[in-house]
Amino acid sequence: MDLELVTIGTELLLGHTVDSNAADLSRALTAVGARVVRTSTVGDDHDAIVATVRDALARAGFVVTTGGLGPTRDDITKGAVAAIYKVPMVRDEAYERLLEERWQALRRPGAMPESNRTQALLPRGAERLSNPRGTAPGLWLEGAPGTVVMLPGVPEEARGLVAEEVVPRLARQLSDTAVVTRSYVLRTAGIGESALADRLDGVEQTLAPVTLAYLPTLDGVDLRFTVWGVAANRADAMLSEAIGLVRPTLGDHCYGADGADLAGEVLHLLEQKRLRLAVAESCTGGLIGARLTAVAGASVAFVGGVVAYDDAVKRVQLGVGEELLATHGAVSEAVVTAMAHGVCDRFGVEAGLAVSGVAGPGGGTDDKPVGTVCLAARVGAQNRVVTLRVLGDRYQIRARAVQGALFLLRRTIGVL
Amino acid sequence: MDLELVTIGTELLLGHTVDSNAADLSRALTAVGARVVRTSTVGDDHDAIVATVRDALARAGFVVTTGGLGPTRDDITKGAVAAIYKVPMVRDEAYERLLEERWQALRRPGAMPESNRTQALLPRGAERLSNPRGTAPGLWLEGAPGTVVMLPGVPEEARGLVAEEVVPRLARQLSDTAVVTRSYVLRTAGIGESALADRLDGVEQTLAPVTLAYLPTLDGVDLRFTVWGVAANRADAMLSEAIGLVRPTLGDHCYGADGADLAGEVLHLLEQKRLRLAVAESCTGGLIGARLTAVAGASVAFVGGVVAYDDAVKRVQLGVGEELLATHGAVSEAVVTAMAHGVCDRFGVEAGLAVSGVAGPGGGTDDKPVGTVCLAARVGAQNRVVTLRVLGDRYQIRARAVQGALFLLRRTIGVL
Repeated sequence: MDLELVTIGTELLLGHTVDSNAADLSRALTAVGARVVRTSTVGDDHDAIVATVRDALARAGFVVTTGGLGPTRDDITKGAVAAIYKVPMVRDEAYERLLEERWQALRRPGAMPESNRTQALLPRGAERLSNPRGTAPGLWLEGAPGTVVMLPGVPEEARGLVAEEVVPRLARQLSDTAVVTRSYVLRTAGIGESALADRLDGVEQTLAPVTLAYLPTLDGVDLRFTVWGVAANRADAMLSEAIGLVRPTLGDHCYGADGADLAGEVLHLLEQKRLRLAVAESCTGGLIGARLTAVAGASVAFVGGVVAYDDAVKRVQLGVGEELLATHGAVSEAVVTAMAHGVCDRFGVEAGLAVSGVAGPGGGTDDKPVGTVCLAARVGAQNRVVTLRVLGDRYQIRARAVQGALFLLRRTIGVL
Repeated sequence: MDLELVTIGTELLLGHTVDSNAADLSRALTAVGARVVRTSTVGDDHDAIVATVRDALARAGFVVTTGGLGPTRDDITKGAVAAIYKVPMVRDEAYERLLEERWQALRRPGAMPESNRTQALLPRGAERLSNPRGTAPGLWLEGAPGTVVMLPGVPEEARGLVAEEVVPRLARQLSDTAVVTRSYVLRTAGIGESALADRLDGVEQTLAPVTLAYLPTLDGVDLRFTVWGVAANRADAMLSEAIGLVRPTLGDHCYGADGADLAGEVLHLLEQKRLRLAVAESCTGGLIGARLTAVAGASVAFVGGVVAYDDAVKRVQLGVGEELLATHGAVSEAVVTAMAHGVCDRFGVEAGLAVSGVAGPGGGTDDKPVGTVCLAARVGAQNRVVTLRVLGDRYQIRARAVQGALFLLRRTIGVL
C-alpha cells in the first residue's frame, strides 16, 4: 500500500521550523505496512495545497497531510481538500457543542470567539478522528480521488493521532500477510564501529534477508536490524532470530534496545547491588551528574558529587595531592584514580566515578592531544582506570567522555 | 525568484533520518531573495528522482537537490539528472586526480577503490562546486529545463556549499532590489510571553511592515522580527529600526541576538568584573556546571561546584544546617541561600549560585508542587533569592531552572 505525505505550513518553507512530522509519521506508517513513496511540503496557499494534494492522490491514492487545521486565517487545509473532492464545508454541530463545552471549562471571560467556531466546519463526508491533545480533530475523507487523512501540525498531536487512530484503521485494512518494513535497534557502548564489525564478521552474512546497519552516535554504535517488505506476521520473528544470532557476540557492550539509556541502566545496577554513587568531574563539568539525574528516581543510588574544574578544587575538595598534579598533570590516570578515591571518601559512598580530559578546542599537547580523556571507576575496593582518545568537537568529546565513564562504571560493577 | 528543494534518500522516507537540510537550506536561500515554493522528498529510486526533479523544474525552473552524490550504488542523483537533461555522464579527469591525491594522503593500503572513482563521473556541462568538507563535490547544471544544483546529503557539507557557493552565485544573479524575506531574533529570559506582550503593547503596532513573533523556548522567549518580500537593500535597515524601537523596553531581560547563550554572557560578565564562580546544584544535578563548561574558556571564571542531590551532601559538603533543612525543607529559599553561601565559603570564591527544586514527576506537595524551584545568587555580600513555578516535564523543568538561575546571577552581577 503506497501513500504520500503532504506537510503544510509557510513556516516549513521559510525554514523557521524543522519538519519532524515527516520522519515520525513515516516510521509509524512504514511499520504497519504502508510504503511512503514521496513527501511534499507546501505553504499556507490554497492553490498550492490543492495542486500538491491532488497530484499526490493521483500518484498514490492515499495521502496524509499535516498542518493547517487550526482556527486562524492561514489554516486552510480543510477548504483545499474540500475543493479537490468537490464537496461543500458543513457545520458539525456535535463538534461545535464539544468546543463550547471546552471553552466553558476554561472559564475565560466572554463568549467563544468566532474563529474557534470555524473549527467545526468540515468537508462533507469527512470522519472526525479524536484528538485529546488539542482542539483540532483529525479528519479522514474517502472519495473518488482516493483517501485523505488530515492531521494537525503540532508534533505531539500528529503522533498521537497516527498511533491511536490512523494505524489501527490501516491495520484493519491491511491483512496479516500485508508487506511491512520493520526495524529493531540494539545499543552498544565502549566499542568502535570497526571493532564491532570485526566481531560480527561471520555472523553478519547469516542474517539475510534481515539487514544490519551500523549507526555511530555520541552514545556509541547503534545496530539497526531491518526486515524489508515481508509479511507482517513474519516480520517480528525474523527480527528476533537475527538479534538472537548477534546478541551473544556483543557481550557487555550491549546495554539495551532502542531508547535504552546507559545512565538508567547504571542506576538500575547500582540499586540492585545496593551501592551509592558519587562523581568527580573535571572536563565534563557536571554532565555525568546531569545525565544520571535526568532519570527520575536517581536519588535511590546517586548522592551527588564535585565539579572539580579548577585544580584547586581537585586538591581542596577531593584531596588530590599537589605533587600528583604536578608530576602527572590533571589529565592523568593517577589523578582520576585519586579523584574517584577522594569523592568516595568524602561523600562516604561505595561507588565513585571520575573524569578529567582535554575537551578542546585549546589545551591539547603532543602528549595529550584534544580528545584525551582519563576515566576512573571505583566500586568498593575495586578500581578501574582507562585513557580514551575520542574524536569530535568540544561538545562531542564531552558527551563521549560521559558515555565512556558510565560504561566503565557498569563494567566495574558487573565484575564484582 | 522561485525555487524548489528535492531531498533524496530512502532513509528519509522510512523516517530513520529527520530532514534538517530542508529547513537549513530554505532559511539560507530565503534570506538572499529566493522563494522556496515547494519541498519534495523521494527515495533512492531512478524513476522517482527523474519524475520529481522534472516536475519541480517545470513548476519553478530552479531546483536544489540534496543527497545521492556519494560513491555507493544507491547514490544515483547525478545519473537521474543527466537523464532529465539528456546529457551523457563524462569523466572529470582533474577531479579524479584530486580524489587520487586525497587517497594517497590517507596512506591507506592498496589502490583507490573503483567505487570512489565513480565520484569523478559528472553530467556533461555540470560545473563543480568546491566541497572542502567531503569527497563529493556540489554540482551546478544549467540547460533547457532550467537550473539544477546538486548538493551532498551530509548536513554540514550541504550547509557549507550553500553558504560558500550557492548563495554568492544567487546574489550575483539577483539585483539589490530583489525581494527578500529576512529575520532577526532577540533572546529574552526571566519574563513570560504574556508579560512580554504587555510590555510591547503600544510599540508592537508601530513596527509594521516588520512582523514580530513570540517564540517560547526552554531558554525563555525569543522575539523574531521578520520583513517579508522587501528589496534586499532595505531589509536590514527596516529590521534595525524595528529592533531599535523594541530593545529599550526589554531591559535586562534581553541578553543577545540569535545564537546568544546566557551561560556565555554570564561568564563574560564574571570575567569583566574579575569574579570567580562556584555552583551548588540539587535538582539540576550538574546541569548548570555543564551549561557553563560547554563554553570554551569557562575556566577563566568558573572553578566548579557541588552536586548536592542528597540532603546529607548539602549538610556535609556545603554546611547547610540540619535544623534549616528540617524546618524549611530542602526546596526553600532559606536552604538555597545557605547553599550559595556554603559553596562560596568552601570554594573561596566571590560568586555562588544555588538551586533546589521539585523536578518531578514525583515529589510534589500541595505546598511545593512539581515545578517549584528555589534559586539563590550571591556576589560578594550581595544576595538574591527567588522561587519560581515552572511548567513542563522533568526535562523542561530542569532546563528552565538552569536558565532561571543564570538569569538571576546575571541580574545580581549587573546591579553591583
